[in-house]
Amino acid sequence: MEQDPGFIAAVEEAKQGAAEGGVPIGACLVSKDGKILGRGHNMRVQKGSATLHFRRAQAEISALENSGRLPASAYEGATMYTTLSPCDMCTGACVLYKIKRVVVGENKSFMGGEQYLQNRGIEVVVLENDECKQLMEKFMREKPDIWNEDIGV
Amino acid sequence: MEQDPGFIAAVEEAKQGAAEGGVPIGACLVSKDGKILGRGHNMRVQKGSATLHFRRAQAEISALENSGRLPASAYEGATMYTTLSPCDMCTGACVLYKIKRVVVGENKSFMGGEQYLQNRGIEVVVLENDECKQLMEKFMREKPDIWNEDIGV
Repeated sequence: MEQDPGFIAAVEEAKQGAAEGGVPIGACLVSKDGKILGRGHNMRVQKGSATLHFRRAQAEISALENSGRLPASAYEGATMYTTLSPCDMCTGACVLYKIKRVVVGENKSFMGGEQYLQNRGIEVVVLENDECKQLMEKFMREKPDIWNEDIGV
Repeated sequence: MEQDPGFIAAVEEAKQGAAEGGVPIGACLVSKDGKILGRGHNMRVQKGSATLHFRRAQAEISALENSGRLPASAYEGATMYTTLSPCDMCTGACVLYKIKRVVVGENKSFMGGEQYLQNRGIEVVVLENDECKQLMEKFMREKPDIWNEDIGV
């Protein structure tokens, strides 16, 4: 599953976020027939000030935004690939959009709504991917203030 | 509580949405010290095509968007007033933003994530407000296609 085009795209997005000096979390939404609907990365730093709050810039929300205006049926049965365990808002968005499966790069840096996704009938796969972990570990080590403000823990 | 400035603002927003030909759902976010942080209404029709999907225009998300870029602490302890029970994504957003209380105008037209909000320690108050119900009933009667596409049930 680490070779899925959707996961590769999510990791590329996370790296792009890191290259921009931002939070290195990427996501990619793939339809049930394997088409990439949208991809994106966390835009918190890029869109906001480091000292201000801008949670509405999550990777998964960016991927959904970048999918454009599709009929509801386009999202049903889709897979959301994300490099990091999804926060509560992204979890809710996946439920609302009737995403079938969420593939998580890693959940050691942050554990989000995986249990709730499963409770709502969504399959969750955690890859424990080393590259995703390293991206987050570097970021948390180098920019702890941004991370603490972003995730709010 | 129906006299709270936040609830009055939410109903005004719902009416504004109806006047624009849109989905009549309004919301208003009030800080713990009583200040209105943001207000808004569902923008699905206004932002998208009636035949296309545009769920990222919910009333509660609009209210959060319209609150601008505030520090995380500004949202903690806040109350979200909404004329209709919140969908899964708005439910997740309220959890993420550490909203303390969600005041729901009515939940007869649609029942969203109230149980989950309570499970996450958020107080939920349902007003069963007649004006909110009438706005939704009129809308669902006159524009069933838009409603069915919007809520996706």
